[in-house]
Formats: sequence, C-alpha cells, structure tokens
Amino acid sequence: MSESLSFASEKSGLPPGSLVHVGEVHDYPHSISLINYNGTHLEKRTIQSIEECLHYQNTDTITWVVINGLKDVSVIDAIGKHFNIHALVLEDILNTHQRPKLEEFNDYLFIVMKAVTLEDSTYSISYEQISLLLLSNFVFTFREKPDALFQPVIDRLNIPTSQLRNVGADYLTYVLIDAIVDEYFTMQDNLDELVETVEDELLVNPSTKTLATIQKIRRELIFLRRTMPPLRELLKALHRSSESPLLEERTRRYFGDVYDHVIRISESVESYRDLIASMLDIYLSSISNKMNETMKVLTVFASIFIPLTFIAGVYGMNFEYMPELKWRWGYPALWCVFVSVSVSLLIYFKRKKWL
Amino acid sequence: MSESLSFASEKSGLPPGSLVHVGEVHDYPHSISLINYNGTHLEKRTIQSIEECLHYQNTDTITWVVINGLKDVSVIDAIGKHFNIHALVLEDILNTHQRPKLEEFNDYLFIVMKAVTLEDSTYSISYEQISLLLLSNFVFTFREKPDALFQPVIDRLNIPTSQLRNVGADYLTYVLIDAIVDEYFTMQDNLDELVETVEDELLVNPSTKTLATIQKIRRELIFLRRTMPPLRELLKALHRSSESPLLEERTRRYFGDVYDHVIRISESVESYRDLIASMLDIYLSSISNKMNETMKVLTVFASIFIPLTFIAGVYGMNFEYMPELKWRWGYPALWCVFVSVSVSLLIYFKRKKWL
Amino acid sequence: MSESLSFASEKSGLPPGSLVHVGEVHDYPHSISLINYNGTHLEKRTIQSIEECLHYQNTDTITWVVINGLKDVSVIDAIGKHFNIHALVLEDILNTHQRPKLEEFNDYLFIVMKAVTLEDSTYSISYEQISLLLLSNFVFTFREKPDALFQPVIDRLNIPTSQLRNVGADYLTYVLIDAIVDEYFTMQDNLDELVETVEDELLVNPSTKTLATIQKIRRELIFLRRTMPPLRELLKALHRSSESPLLEERTRRYFGDVYDHVIRISESVESYRDLIASMLDIYLSSISNKMNETMKVLTVFASIFIPLTFIAGVYGMNFEYMPELKWRWGYPALWCVFVSVSVSLLIYFKRKKWL
Amino acid sequence: MSESLSFASEKSGLPPGSLVHVGEVHDYPHSISLINYNGTHLEKRTIQSIEECLHYQNTDTITWVVINGLKDVSVIDAIGKHFNIHALVLEDILNTHQRPKLEEFNDYLFIVMKAVTLEDSTYSISYEQISLLLLSNFVFTFREKPDALFQPVIDRLNIPTSQLRNVGADYLTYVLIDAIVDEYFTMQDNLDELVETVEDELLVNPSTKTLATIQKIRRELIFLRRTMPPLRELLKALHRSSESPLLEERTRRYFGDVYDHVIRISESVESYRDLIASMLDIYLSSISNKMNETMKVLTVFASIFIPLTFIAGVYGMNFEYMPELKWRWGYPALWCVFVSVSVSLLIYFKRKKWL
Amino acid sequence: MSESLSFASEKSGLPPGSLVHVGEVHDYPHSISLINYNGTHLEKRTIQSIEECLHYQNTDTITWVVINGLKDVSVIDAIGKHFNIHALVLEDILNTHQRPKLEEFNDYLFIVMKAVTLEDSTYSISYEQISLLLLSNFVFTFREKPDALFQPVIDRLNIPTSQLRNVGADYLTYVLIDAIVDEYFTMQDNLDELVETVEDELLVNPSTKTLATIQKIRRELIFLRRTMPPLRELLKALHRSSESPLLEERTRRYFGDVYDHVIRISESVESYRDLIASMLDIYLSSISNKMNETMKVLTVFASIFIPLTFIAGVYGMNFEYMPELKWRWGYPALWCVFVSVSVSLLIYFKRKKWL
Repeated sequence: MSESLSFASEKSGLPPGSLVHVGEVHDYPHSISLINYNGTHLEKRTIQSIEECLHYQNTDTITWVVINGLKDVSVIDAIGKHFNIHALVLEDILNTHQRPKLEEFNDYLFIVMKAVTLEDSTYSISYEQISLLLLSNFVFTFREKPDALFQPVIDRLNIPTSQLRNVGADYLTYVLIDAIVDEYFTMQDNLDELVETVEDELLVNPSTKTLATIQKIRRELIFLRRTMPPLRELLKALHRSSESPLLEERTRRYFGDVYDHVIRISESVESYRDLIASMLDIYLSSISNKMNETMKVLTVFASIFIPLTFIAGVYGMNFEYMPELKWRWGYPALWCVFVSVSVSLLIYFKRKKWL
Repeated sequence: MSESLSFASEKSGLPPGSLVHVGEVHDYPHSISLINYNGTHLEKRTIQSIEECLHYQNTDTITWVVINGLKDVSVIDAIGKHFNIHALVLEDILNTHQRPKLEEFNDYLFIVMKAVTLEDSTYSISYEQISLLLLSNFVFTFREKPDALFQPVIDRLNIPTSQLRNVGADYLTYVLIDAIVDEYFTMQDNLDELVETVEDELLVNPSTKTLATIQKIRRELIFLRRTMPPLRELLKALHRSSESPLLEERTRRYFGDVYDHVIRISESVESYRDLIASMLDIYLSSISNKMNETMKVLTVFASIFIPLTFIAGVYGMNFEYMPELKWRWGYPALWCVFVSVSVSLLIYFKRKKWL
Repeated sequence: MSESLSFASEKSGLPPGSLVHVGEVHDYPHSISLINYNGTHLEKRTIQSIEECLHYQNTDTITWVVINGLKDVSVIDAIGKHFNIHALVLEDILNTHQRPKLEEFNDYLFIVMKAVTLEDSTYSISYEQISLLLLSNFVFTFREKPDALFQPVIDRLNIPTSQLRNVGADYLTYVLIDAIVDEYFTMQDNLDELVETVEDELLVNPSTKTLATIQKIRRELIFLRRTMPPLRELLKALHRSSESPLLEERTRRYFGDVYDHVIRISESVESYRDLIASMLDIYLSSISNKMNETMKVLTVFASIFIPLTFIAGVYGMNFEYMPELKWRWGYPALWCVFVSVSVSLLIYFKRKKWL
Repeated sequence: MSESLSFASEKSGLPPGSLVHVGEVHDYPHSISLINYNGTHLEKRTIQSIEECLHYQNTDTITWVVINGLKDVSVIDAIGKHFNIHALVLEDILNTHQRPKLEEFNDYLFIVMKAVTLEDSTYSISYEQISLLLLSNFVFTFREKPDALFQPVIDRLNIPTSQLRNVGADYLTYVLIDAIVDEYFTMQDNLDELVETVEDELLVNPSTKTLATIQKIRRELIFLRRTMPPLRELLKALHRSSESPLLEERTRRYFGDVYDHVIRISESVESYRDLIASMLDIYLSSISNKMNETMKVLTVFASIFIPLTFIAGVYGMNFEYMPELKWRWGYPALWCVFVSVSVSLLIYFKRKKWL
Repeated sequence: MSESLSFASEKSGLPPGSLVHVGEVHDYPHSISLINYNGTHLEKRTIQSIEECLHYQNTDTITWVVINGLKDVSVIDAIGKHFNIHALVLEDILNTHQRPKLEEFNDYLFIVMKAVTLEDSTYSISYEQISLLLLSNFVFTFREKPDALFQPVIDRLNIPTSQLRNVGADYLTYVLIDAIVDEYFTMQDNLDELVETVEDELLVNPSTKTLATIQKIRRELIFLRRTMPPLRELLKALHRSSESPLLEERTRRYFGDVYDHVIRISESVESYRDLIASMLDIYLSSISNKMNETMKVLTVFASIFIPLTFIAGVYGMNFEYMPELKWRWGYPALWCVFVSVSVSLLIYFKRKKWL
C-alpha cells in the first residue's frame, strides 16, 4: 500500500524528461532477456546491452525484450535513442507511480499496467508497474522485479504450433496483458477467502482484531479501486479504437475478451466495498447488542439485590422500639419476603425477555 | 452466491481459446435435445452427437438444440467446427463466470444470460448461466443443469397455431429470453415476501437472527445488483440495434417489452437496497431504544433504594449517643421517611416519563 | 404500496400478447363513457360496447372514451381490433405494473401514467395506472377505478368557448396529463403537512411511534421516487420530440409546462428523502442524548449515596475497640461528614454540568 | 423555507394559462416604476398603467419597467396583450413556485430567477422570485416585494458615462442578473459566519441547541441546493447559446462571468453540505464520548465503594463467634484494608486511563 | 481555509470590470521581475513600471514578467492597456477567489491556478492564486506573495542548452504550470505522513484530539477537493484543444503529462476522503468498544459484591431469634458462602469472556 500513497514529489523541480528512477527501489539483479521467434524459429538469450538486439529490426521475426529492474537508466536511454521513443515515455517507464494508460504514437504504442499480488500474511496488496512498448515487430517489457509472471507465456512460445508463434507482435502484447490481468483473478480468489474468513469470525466471535482486519481490507480496496477505471479505459481503447495500424482487427476481439475480464474484476471490487461496508454495520450492531447484554446482567443483579439489601438494612437498625425484632417468626418471615421479592422480580425480567 | 465470488482464476496461464469448463461443476446427466419445427411440422428427439442435426441446416425449418450440462467439451467443440463459431465464443460458453452480454458476428449472435432462483430456506440466490447462439434458422441453448425452465416454451411449440410456430428463429430467441427474465419476477415475488416477513419481525421483536437475515438479503442483493446493468445493456442492444440481419424489425418491439421488464426488475432491486438500508437503521435505533429501557429500569431501582439503604445504614450505626434510637416513635417515623422518599422519587421519574 | 412490490410473476409462462388482467383486481363496476365534441357541439353518454363509438371515426369531431375498470378484457380486445392497436399495447393496458412510458406508433401514441393519492390515515401512497391512447381524433383513457379525477376536465368541456373545445385531441391529452400531474402536487402538499407534523413531534417528544412514521414515509418515498424518472422521460419526450404528426407544435409548449411541474415534483421528492434522512439522524442523536441523561441521573444518585452508605456501614461494625463510637459528638460529627461529602460531590457534578 | 415546500396545488383544476397569483401573497403596496434611458438621456418615473409606456416602443432608447408586487393581475395581462407575450409566460410570472429558467421566444427572452436572503435571527433563507422579460429595447422586471436590491443598478444608470448607459438592453439584463447573484455571495458570507459559530460551539460545548441549529442549516441547504442546478443551467444557456438575436456576442462573455460566480456558489453549497454532515458525525462522537465519561465516573465510584461496603457489612454481622471483633487492633487493621483496597483500585483505574 | 470560505461579497454592487483587489490582502512588498531570453541571450532585472518591458514586444526573444503582489492595481491596469487585455480578465487577476480556469482569446490565453501548501503545525492548506497570461512571446505571471516556487524554473533558464531556453513561450507556460502542480505532490506527501500518524494514534490510543485532527483533515479535504475538477478541466483543455495558435502541437503532449499528474492527485484526494471516512468509523467503533469495557468492569464489580453485601446485611440484622448467629461455625461457614458465590460468578463472567 505504501506504493499507492507515497506519491512522487521526488522529482519536483527537475526538468521534464529527466531520466531518473522515481518510486520504491528494488534490489533485484538487473537483467535483459531476449526472445526472437517466428513460426519456425525460436531463440532465447540474455543480453548485456540493447545494441545486441538492433539487428533484429530488419528481420521479419518478432522480438520480445524483457527488461527486469529499472535501476540501469542507460538501458532505457539506449532504447529511446535506437527506437526513437519520446522522452516523456522513457520518463514514464522509470516513474513507477503511473496510472495504467495507453499512449498511441505513430510508430509504437506505449502501455502501462499494474500487476497485483495479495500478500496472505499481511492482507496487503503489492503493485508492480509493468510497461510495454509495442513496435511493428518488437515488444519491450519493463518490469520492476523478476518473477514467474510471464513463465506461462514463455512456455507457450516453446510450442511451434501455438497460435502465439504464428501471428504478430500485437498478439504477443495481448497474451502478456492477459497474463497480467489473470493475476487480478488470483488476487480476487485470495481476497474472497479472506473476506469469507472475516465474515465467519464476525458472526461467531467479533473482536477488535476483526475490526482491524476489516479496516485493513477496506484500505486496500480504496487503493485497488483507484487502479480499476484507468485499466478499464486502457482495455476499452485497445478493444475499440481502430486507428493504430499496429493492432490487427482480429487481435482486437481478443482485447475485448480481456476487457470483459477487467469489467468483471472491477465490478467485484465494487461488490467487496459494499460487503465490507455491510460488515462494518454488522460489527457496530453486534457491539451495541453486546453492550445491551452487559447492561441487562447488571440491571438484573442490581435490581434484585438492592431492595433486599435495603430490607436487611432496616432490620439491622438499632432502634429501641422495633417490635418486629422481638417476634418469634420475624426472621423466617423476612426470608419469605426476600424470596418472594426476588421471585417476582425474576418473573418481571423474564417477561421483558431479559433472561 | 459462491458462484458470484469464486471468480475464475482456474484458467490462469492457459492459452486463450482453450476449451476447458470453468466454474462450478454440476453432476447432472449430460444430454442434447433437438426440436425441429415450422408451421406445419414438429419433431422432438434426443440426440447423441451434434452431427445428427447437421442436415437441418439446409431445410427452411427452425431447429432448436438444447445442450444440458457443459461437462462434455467435445459437443461444444463440434458445434464450433460445424457452425464456424469463434474460439472465444466457445470458451465463453464453457466459462460460467460470464456477465450477461451480446456479441454480434456476421453469421450469428451470441447471447449470455443468467437465470436466477431464490432458495427459500437459505435465502440465497442461485445463478445458472444460459448461453444462446442464434443462427439464421438454428438456435443453440447451453445450460448448466436440466430443469423445467423452458417447459412452457416447449408446450407452446406443441400448438401449431401459436405465433411461435409461424415466425423465425429470432422470435424463438425472444421467447427463451422472456422465459429467463420471467424467473426474475418469480424471484422478486419471493424476495418480496421475505422482506415483508423480516420487516414485521423487526417491528414486533427484532433479534440478532433478524439482523443475520437482513445481512443475508443485503449480501444477495449486492451480487444480484451486479447482474442488472449488463442485462439491461444486453436487452437495450437487442431492442435498439438494427444492424444485425438476424433480428427482424417486428421481433425488436418484443425485445423492447422484455427490456421494460428488465428495467422494472432492476429498479426494484435498487428499491430493495434502499429498503434494506432503512431496515438496518431501524434495527440500530431499536437496539438503542432497548438499551435506554434497560438503563431506565436500573436507574429507577437504584435511585430509589440507594438513599433508603443509606438511611437504614445510619440507624444501624453503633454510636453510644444517638438520641433518635431512644425515641419511642423513631422507627415508625423512619418508615414515613422511607415511604415519602420513594414516593417523591417515583413522582420525579413519572414526570420524566420513565415509568 | 402493495402495488409497487407485488410484481407480476402472475403471467410467467403465458405467451406474450395474451390479454389477461395482471395486477390487483378492483371490484368497481365496469363502465364506458363517451364524450364527443367540437367547438359547437358536445355529446356525453355511457355506452355498452366499443362498437357504438366506431361511427365517430369518420367525423371531424373529437371523441374521448373513458374505460373505467379493466375487468372486461373483451372491451380492450375490441378496441385493439377496430382501431388496429398492437397486441403488446393491449397487454400493457391490462397489466397495471407498468412504468410510465410513451410509445409512438404510426397511427397512435400510447401513454402510461400513474395517478397517486396519499391516504392520510395510513400515510400510504396508492397508485392507479391510467393508460391513454391518442389517435388522430380519438382519445381512449383506461382507468383502474372510477373517481372524480377527470371531473374538472369534463367541467371545462361544458364551456363552449374554452380553448379545450376548439383545438385538437392532442390538447385534450395534455389536459388529462396535466390533471394527473396536479394530483402529485396535492399529494405533495399532504406529504408536506405530514413531514412538518413529524418534525415537530421529533423535537418535542420523539417516540418509537415517530420512528415508525418516519420509516413509513421513507418507504413510500423509495417507491414514489421510482416512478419519477420514467415520468420525467415521458414528458420530456412529449415536449421535445417533433416526429409524431399527432402532436402539434403549439401543444408541445404546454407539455413543456407539465414537464416543468414534473421536474419540480421530482426534485421535491429528492428533498424529502434528504429531509427524512436528516430526521433519522436527529432521532438517533436524541436517543443517545436521552440515554446520557438517564446515565447521569443514575451516576449522581449512586455516586453520592454509595460513599455515605459505606461510612454508615463502618460505624455499624461491631468491633469491641472502636473509639469513635464512645465519643460524645461522634454521631453529630458524622452527619457533618455526610453533608460535606454530598455537598462536595454535588458541586463536582454541578461543575461537570450534569445538574 | 415555507416557500420551498408549499407547492402549488392551489391551481389544480384550473385551465392552463389562467392568470391567478399562485404562492405566498405579500401585502406590499403595488407599484410600477419606469426608467427610460440612452447615453444622453435619463427619465425616471412611476406609472399607473402599462399603457403609459407603450409609446417608448418606437424610440431607440432603452426602457426598464419594474413591477413591484404581483397582486394586480391586470398589469400582467396588459403587458401580455401589448407586447404579445405567451399566456404560459404570464402564468409563470404570477406563479412564484417556478424553478429558475430561461425560455427563448422569437421576440423576447423570459428569465425566472430566485433572489435569496438569509434571515440572521432564524437562520432561514427566504426566496423571492424575480422574473425578467427581455425585448429588443425593453426590459420588464417582476418582483414579489419592493426593496433596495436594484438600487446599485439605478445608481449606475445615473452616471451618463457608465458602460450601462451606452449599450443595449441585454447588458441591463446582465447587470440585473449579476445583482441578484451577488445576493447569493452575501448570503454565503452570512452562512459562513453562522457555520463557524456553530463549529466553535460544537468543539467547546455541544448542546441539543447546537444540534437543532445544525439541523436547521441542513434543512435550508437541502432547499438551497435545489435551486442551484437550474440556475447553473440558466446562466450556461445565456453564456453559450448564440441563437437569440437579443443577446450580443460581447454581452455573452459577461454572462460567462456570472456563470463562474454561480458555479462557485453552487460548489460552496456542496461544501457546506459536506461540512454539516461532518459536524453531525462530530456531534454523535461527542455524545458517545460524554456518555463514556459518565460511565467511567459511575464505575470508579461504584467499584471502589462497593467492595468496601461489603467488608464493613461483614463486620456489622452479629455472629456470636467472630474472633476478629475482639482483636485489639481489628478496627485500625480494617482501615488499612479499606485504604489499600481503594488505593489499588485507583491505581488500576489510573492505568486504564480512566482518571 | 479562510480563503475557501470567505467568498467575495466585497464587490457586490460595483460595476463589472472595476479593478479592485478582492480577497485577503497580503503585506508583502510589491515587485516586478522581468526575464528576457532566447537560446543565446538571458537578461534578468527588476523593473518599476510595465512601460519598461514594452520594447520587447517587437523582438523575437521571450519575455517573462512576474508581478509579485496584487496591491498595485495600476500595474494590472497598464498591462491591460498596453497588451489589450479584456477588462474581465484584469478583474479576475485581482479577485483571488477564482476557480482554476482557462480562457481563450484571440491574442492571448488566460490561465488561473491555485498553488497549495500544507502548514505542518496547523494541518491547514493555504492557497495562493497564480494567474498566467500567455501572449505570443510574452508570459505574465501574477502572484499573491513572493516565494521560491519558481526558483527551479529560473535555475533552468540559466542553462543555455536547456530545452526551455530554445523553445517558445508556451513551453515556459508548461514549465510554470508543472512547477505549481508539483507543489500538490509535496502537499500530498505531507498529508500522507499526517494521515499515517493519525491512523497509528487511532489504533494505539484514540482521544478527542485524534477526532479533532481527523475533522481538521476532513475539512481541508472538502475544500481541496473543490479545486480539483476545474484543475483537471483546465489541463484537459490545454492538452486536447488544438484551436489556439499559441500552443504548439509538441507542447501539448507535455501538458498531457501534467494532466496525468493532476488526475493522480485528484484520485488520491478521493482516496484520502474514503480513508478519513473509514477512520471515523473506526473511531466510533472504538468509543463503543471502550464504553462496553467500562460497562463490563462495573457489571463484574457490582454483580459480585451486591449479593455478598446483601448476605452480610442479613446477618447484621438484630432479630432476637436468628439461630445461625449462635452457631459455632456460622461465621466461617458464611465466608465459605462468600467465596463460593464470588467464584461461581467469576466463572460465569469468564465464560461470557468478560474477564
């Protein structure tokens, strides 16, 4: 969550277009992987500098370059120079406080997305900014940290007959976006389990810990919710707009499919919000109910014994002339009074349904 | 409700277009029914494979194929192949986590809907995804489980003079959608009764069970509400769009009628939400009121007897020089004090309207 | 209110276009009135069957037919046949669960409205569906029950010089709609009085009865509110659309006037909602305040007498060696202690503003 | 506020266009003032009948007629006849329950506005409906009551070099609307002061009177808020629409300026609403806090003295064999017990931060 | 905040276009700075009157004039005369209650913005209105007070190779707007820290001071939120509109970048609102929880000792015939009763989880 709040005032005062990494710095090793493929051919390797991939520009194969880690600004700079990318785009890649967005340029599309993970132990959602550059036969992917997110895509690239191997770079882009969006479903399933656990807790034995968890989830949803509208917009734009020559008509229907997924996720985030709000109402009601229970116990105890104590007090007085004290059956009679007073009060409270 | 929350992360990592059944698996027997009809002719039978219906493609009769159960993926696959259906559509048929939607293709329309049932005993709404494929003279219906939902439609097909027998496949589609939407009215009537019961309970004797029921209904409404906007959109599209040659002008007015129904349902879902919210307010007020009642009982008891007990305590003291103790009428006089103190306090509380 | 909730699942399974009366059945006598007029001529009579009015079709007078009661389906059927009305329109006339709406056909306009009445005693709003068919020189009005709603219109028709007598059927339609909308103003005035009464009650002496009334009004507003947007839409359409040849340009400005009325009503329904919400806040605050008052009374009583009782208890102990008990002025001195303890506590509570 | 709620059911049943004054009747003397001016000439006088101003129609001077009081319907009627004003417009002038609106006719514009005043003593906002008719060189202003609202405009008309004297009737309209909108700023400043006073009260010493004031302001804002959207719409229309030949291009920019003012007022009404809502939360929190304080006092007193009283009670018992009673140091030892019990409880409560 | 509420009724009654400074008057020294530059040349100096900069109008260098302080109305007047600025624009510069806005004229653009600062000590946001006039090679900046806000811009102007030195006046405008928007990020970071501190306080030890701080932040957010939509609109207009010849195509993409920043700020203001609302819920829950704790302590104490005190009271009675009093083991037996009663009550409360 720290990601969502600590906004970038870090660059205040710098000229626009300055290539400085803004955002949380991760200490992962920096690496560049390259995959070059077409229907018949597949080459995977790790490269040291961007210059190594320049010669693929003139082939008809598709080249996918994954940059893991944003610490080495020179790599971004080199891509900017060799592939003629706008300075503001390079700046946005390095500033990991971007909203998901699509920017269309003549020669390339720039896409910013957020990958999400729900940490089970702390109930906090962590975000990773993933930027994509789609050129006519090149795809650059910029990641904050290396993990297995794109492994299924790589696995599918290994199969020569897969659709992925036989169509263009726009389809690769779709497959990558689909992989990122699938992570939202995983997060949602985890969230779902969590909400169910909390709900059960709420009905069985609500405690301040339950409240803290509800508040925690609510907080995460406030920030998660913020990423949904730009994500919807982004996929709507990819699905609807037919201007860019980089996106083929047939790929566009696939983006429509991811758009549907995003709408479903976004709707369920809204539902969770409503659920959480209703859970808070239940929590408040249950506190009030408990307080009422406490009050009733006190009232029953006090109301029964206070009159009895008074009566006992009366016959503890030291007046010289108190005829009852001399009566042979005074004491047992008083016990009868005690019993009948308490029984009638108990009946009274029973009728009020307090017992 | 589990349906609405357990979103499909199951397919994460699979290539798009993979035909895998995603969603709750129902253990109903799988079956395919076929009805072929025109104004003069009606044939009903159960078929084993899709191939059995292919020869109807070249007739001018209308063929309605109902696939009950989605376990047998090969059937869906066969339909895709023989009727040239897009891979994503086949995928959507098998993934029962879809939102209601309409997708227009050149040769066919693809419609996804949700049928609802309110289980009386658990107050939970169960959803069934029903997909429809409308081709020029074919209608495919894909259902999760077999039940009597479409029985009235079949009954009407038995009547040779019915309008249904004498017009096109688009009218059959309308009749099926109308039958699904009618289920919402049934659910609404049940919900209505339930809400009324809860409301009466709330006024007569609210308990934590009432609160739990309110919360249950609220929860169901949160999820039900989510299905309304796409349903409205779907029927608006069927009613308004005049692009598809598969929908005749005259059928469109009938869709307008169903659209009206959906708007009415959607509006009453909103009203229920408001009602439920107001019921929660009443519940909270009634708890506060009850607590106040409890407090008053305690206060009246304590405030009357505490001063009396003090006075009794005073004359229980063992001082050697306490002149009152020797007085002949001390004890009766004190009883007068007791009575007058309690009477004045009772009057005081009466005036405060606590009694 | 029952009207608003008990939605029509009654027709589920029937073929569309079946003429069945759906909704609450009223036991009013069924009747058909006919008024035929132009600037110089006016004829009023009760007819038995629709066939009696057919010959007016070819005159240049205006004919207004009022059908009171929807039990006799054959009348609706006859109108459909003779005036060539769409089956779905006839169905809508008979189904009194419609939303207000306007449907434009080539030869006629179909208008559905809701007339409202606030029952003073039960604070409930009752709705009556009134359907209008506007043909070139015919107006049909379908009512659920006969009452004096249209009496002022009939009175004005009696005046030969009135504008109503000298212009077309569209102006009659306007006058009828205006009469129905005027009922909303009457209802609003009643509601206004009611709200003011409740508000005064709330400030002077709120009780659970007040809460019940607030909840009752709120409930009615939830349902009333639902009818406002379609009513606005309906009048906007009548005011703006210039397609239908049945509505003259000059009449349209009058519809604009009714549209203004509907907006004012709809805005004040919103204001009432806000008012009711704020009343509930006041109610909850006043309960909390009262509880606090109760608590203070208890605390003041208990806190003053509990220490005194303890002191009295101490000198009620039977220790052999308690020097104070032998003191000549012990008892009076203790009374001084009693008085000073209570006075200082009273001052303390005075300072806390509890007294 | 009575204005805002008591909606006009008064005219129900009358034919549209009937000239009847609807709304609160003010008992101010009725008067008509006329100002005729151009750059070189200025004439001010009171006239008795509208006929006196007819001859200005053919001059190239600008004539501003102010009608104070709406009781004399014949004046409105005369204006309608001589200047050819639509019957519905005349009706709207007389019905002071209008929403702010602009109606464009071929020869004139009809503008309805609401002037506001905040009565300091009762915190209630009073509304006055001011209607304007803008003809090519005539401006009619219809007011409910005479006051100094337009005095600054008259003062500026006295200066021959003022812009007002040298441009058209549309500029006079702008100046009048600007004067009315300026009243909203004055009201806002008063409201501002009031809110600040209440807020201070809330933090220092909230009472039920504070709550009543908050509710009062809230109520006024509910109704004030209702007038804002039509006012915005009205000025947007004056600013944007370029259809009417009565409004010159250069005047339109001035209307844009007033439009800005109205947006600012409307936004601050929204802010007040939010502020009031937050004040209510604070009020509720402070009641709860106070109740907690009360509870703590009670609990501390009761919890300390109840155990002590019990111990004292024990040694007040009359058992024959109670060895402690014979002990020489029994009584002083018990005092030690009393002190140590109370001290430990005090420490306990101190730790709980209750003291 | 005073800025946001004290709206300008100060000018009520003045003719529009009167040059009067409306708003809080700051006592800063008034000064005019001038920077004239192009790629090769840079001149900075302080000027006394606007006339000193007139000769730059005919050069091809860019001139940036900063007017610090709005007290000297004659300067604004002179700019209006020499550069032909509309009277309403001059008025808006002097009235510091403007909303952020863009006004396009033929020869110049007029931009109003609000710079913000969060005062750490009082948690209040202070606003400064900054107006910009963009002419073809002139930029005027009007500020309320002199501070270092634009220092980074001046620093960058000192570098001859900076982009800023080599492009047009529109780019300077962008850089200035970017500098103002960057201040929002700084404010946001401060707000972020503040919210985190309050949140921690809330969980550890909520007090009425915490509530006051929450209310303070909420209040500031209400007013901050009001400035966001016009700011978004302003930058959207600068980014999208392609009408003005004063803005070059390439600069527009830079404005798009600032637009993104403003959207991010505006979204996080919304998130803060949600956070604050959720904090208030937590606060209320925690008060209720605390009250319940208090109640439990009281109930446990009272319920245990009240029965015991009664029993002790019984054996303090002075009846002559009370056999128990003579028993040898009566007193120790009673102690056993005392202990067993309290132990069973303690177990009872333990089971209820009150201990």
